[in-house]
Amino acid sequence: MRATFMYGAGDVRVETVPDPVLRQPTDALVRVVTSCICGSDLHPYHSMPAGETRPMGHEFIGVVEETGSQVSTVKRGDLVIAPFAWSDGTCEFCREGLQTSCLHGGFWARDGIGGGQAEAVRVPLADGTLVKAPVGEDSDLLPGLLTLSDVYGTGFHAAKCANVGPGDAVVVVGDGAVGLMAVLSASRLGAEQIILMGRHKDRTDLGREFGATDVVAERGEEGIAKVRELTGGRGARKVLEAVGHLPAYEQAIGVVRPGGVVSRVGVPQYDTAPVGFTSLFGPNITLTGGPAPARAYIEQLMPAVLDGTVQPGKVFDRAIGLEQTPDGYRAMDDREALKVLIRL
Amino acid sequence: MRATFMYGAGDVRVETVPDPVLRQPTDALVRVVTSCICGSDLHPYHSMPAGETRPMGHEFIGVVEETGSQVSTVKRGDLVIAPFAWSDGTCEFCREGLQTSCLHGGFWARDGIGGGQAEAVRVPLADGTLVKAPVGEDSDLLPGLLTLSDVYGTGFHAAKCANVGPGDAVVVVGDGAVGLMAVLSASRLGAEQIILMGRHKDRTDLGREFGATDVVAERGEEGIAKVRELTGGRGARKVLEAVGHLPAYEQAIGVVRPGGVVSRVGVPQYDTAPVGFTSLFGPNITLTGGPAPARAYIEQLMPAVLDGTVQPGKVFDRAIGLEQTPDGYRAMDDREALKVLIRL
Repeated sequence: MRATFMYGAGDVRVETVPDPVLRQPTDALVRVVTSCICGSDLHPYHSMPAGETRPMGHEFIGVVEETGSQVSTVKRGDLVIAPFAWSDGTCEFCREGLQTSCLHGGFWARDGIGGGQAEAVRVPLADGTLVKAPVGEDSDLLPGLLTLSDVYGTGFHAAKCANVGPGDAVVVVGDGAVGLMAVLSASRLGAEQIILMGRHKDRTDLGREFGATDVVAERGEEGIAKVRELTGGRGARKVLEAVGHLPAYEQAIGVVRPGGVVSRVGVPQYDTAPVGFTSLFGPNITLTGGPAPARAYIEQLMPAVLDGTVQPGKVFDRAIGLEQTPDGYRAMDDREALKVLIRL
Repeated sequence: MRATFMYGAGDVRVETVPDPVLRQPTDALVRVVTSCICGSDLHPYHSMPAGETRPMGHEFIGVVEETGSQVSTVKRGDLVIAPFAWSDGTCEFCREGLQTSCLHGGFWARDGIGGGQAEAVRVPLADGTLVKAPVGEDSDLLPGLLTLSDVYGTGFHAAKCANVGPGDAVVVVGDGAVGLMAVLSASRLGAEQIILMGRHKDRTDLGREFGATDVVAERGEEGIAKVRELTGGRGARKVLEAVGHLPAYEQAIGVVRPGGVVSRVGVPQYDTAPVGFTSLFGPNITLTGGPAPARAYIEQLMPAVLDGTVQPGKVFDRAIGLEQTPDGYRAMDDREALKVLIRL
C-alpha cells in the first residue's frame, strides 16, 4: 500500500510499504477513506532531525475490511471514525473518559502501528477505539465527521476542561483549526462572549461563523490590552489556548481574569513555563487541559454533525489525494491552507 | 510601640517605632493580642538582601482600640481576627470570595501598612477585613482562632481548589503547619485516604491526629514509588502541595494520577517549572491554587474551632513574647519549632 512518512524537517514522502495485517484478535484492518494533516504534524515538519523515519497521520475515517476474532462492535463494511488515540474502552481511565491515558492504549504512527495518512491501518483494540458512523463512504458529511478524530474533540476538550457554560466570557488563543473548533465548542456550550485571538482574516471570519463575538488580531501586550478592554478591564474567566507555543501560553496568562482558568490543548512545544507568583500563583489561575480524549466525545458531538446543526468540516479548505500529501504539508506550513483533507 | 523588622537574611530585630494612627475613615487601630511566625517568613529569612528594612508578620488577633468614622462592623473593644490580606469586602473579587485579588486591598507589612508581629496595627478597610471572634482576649481558643488568619485557611484553600470531597484519596506534600492544616481540611471535607509526605515524626504524628491515614517519609523517586504503592499504582487524584519549593512541585507531579489535580498553596520560590507534555500536559493534570482568600473561609471554619471539634491551634508548639521574636525565627528555621506563637 501507499503510506506517508517523514524523514526529517520538511521531508515528507509517500511510499510503498507492505499492507498491514491483523496481528491480535482485537485488531481490525481499516481501509482509509479520508484522512488529513494536523497542525501538530507541522511541529516535526519544522524540527525533526534527519535520519529518523516516522509514519504520519492520526486522523482518519475508513471502512472495516477485516476483524480479529475478539472484535464485536464493528464488522466488515462498517464506516468508522478513528480517534487520535487507540484505547481498550474498559480500563479505569477509559471508563472515566480519559482514553488518552488508557492503560493498554497508545497513539497512531508509533510502536509498530501505522499512521492515518495511508491507504490502510491496523487498528488495535478495535472495540474500544472505533466508532461506527451511520453514513456511506461517499457522504458529504465525511469532512465534518473526520473532525471528530481530533480537532473538534480537541477544541471541545479545551472548553470542557475550562468548564465553559451558559453566559461565560471566553478567550480562544489561536485561529488554527483547533482554535476554531474551540470557538464552536464554547458557542455550543452556551458562552456569551467569545473573543478569538488570531490574525488571519479568512480564519477569523470562519471563527465568527462558528460563534466568535469578537476578534483580536493584535498579539503580545497590545493584544492583551485589547482583550482586557473587551472584558471590563479584568480579562476573561476562561481562556482556551490552542497553539502550543510559549508566546501563546504567555498571551493566555495575560488575558485571564484572577481566579480564572487557562485550558491548554495546543501540544506544548516547551517543557517549562512561568507558573510562579506573578503568573499563575498570585492571581489563583488554574492551568488545565491536555491531549483530548477524542474518543469520549464522538458520540456526544456526532448527532449535530449528522443533522447539519454544526459544520466543523468547514475547517478543511483544501482537499488533495494521498500522493499530494507532501504538498499538503507545504501548503499548511505556508499558511496557504488552514487544514488539508486527504481523499483516498 | 515595639514592632518586628527584618534587615536582611537572618537579621530580625524588635524595635521601637511610632504608634500607628488612623489615616482613613475606613481604618481601625488594633492592639495585637497574639501573632505568630509563618513558614513563608522564613523565605526572606534565608534570602533577603541586607540593606532593606521590612516590617514582619501577617497573622494576628487583636482588640479594636479605635475606628474611623466609616467603620461599622467592628467597634472599640471587639476581639478580631485579621486574615493575611486586607480587602474591601465589596468589590467583584471579594464578592466571589477571592479577597486576595481585591481591587482595593493589599497585604500587611508593605505599602505603608505595618506587620502583625507588633504591638499594634493600622487595619485598612476594617469592615471588609476584620472578623469579630466571640471570645475574650484570655481565651484558650486564641491559638486555634489565630490559624484562621492564614494557615488553616491556606490548608483549606488547597483542599477546596482541588475539590476534595467524600471518599477521595489525597496526598499532602509537606508536613509544615500548612501541610498539616491541609490534612485537617481534607479530613473535614470527607477524604477517605490522606497520605502525608513528610519526614519529621513529631509533625507527621500531629498529621495523623488531624486525619492522615498514611505517612510517607521518603522523598524523590522513593517517595513517589511509596505513594503509588499506596494508591493502587496510579497516584492520587488530588495532591495538595504545601511547601513552595521546586522539588515539592516535582514530587506532587510524581504522585498525581492522570486526570488529577495538583493544588499549590506553598508560595512558589521558583518562577518557571515543568508544565510540558511529560509533566502536566500529557496526563491531563490540572494545576491550581494560589494565595488563600483566608477571609472567605473564616466564618465557615470558626464554629468548629469555637466548639472544640477541631484543634488547629496544636500547630503552635512554642509560645514566646514579642521581644523573643528573633529567637522564634531561629527556632523555626532550625526546625526546633513547627510554628511559633507570639503572645503580647
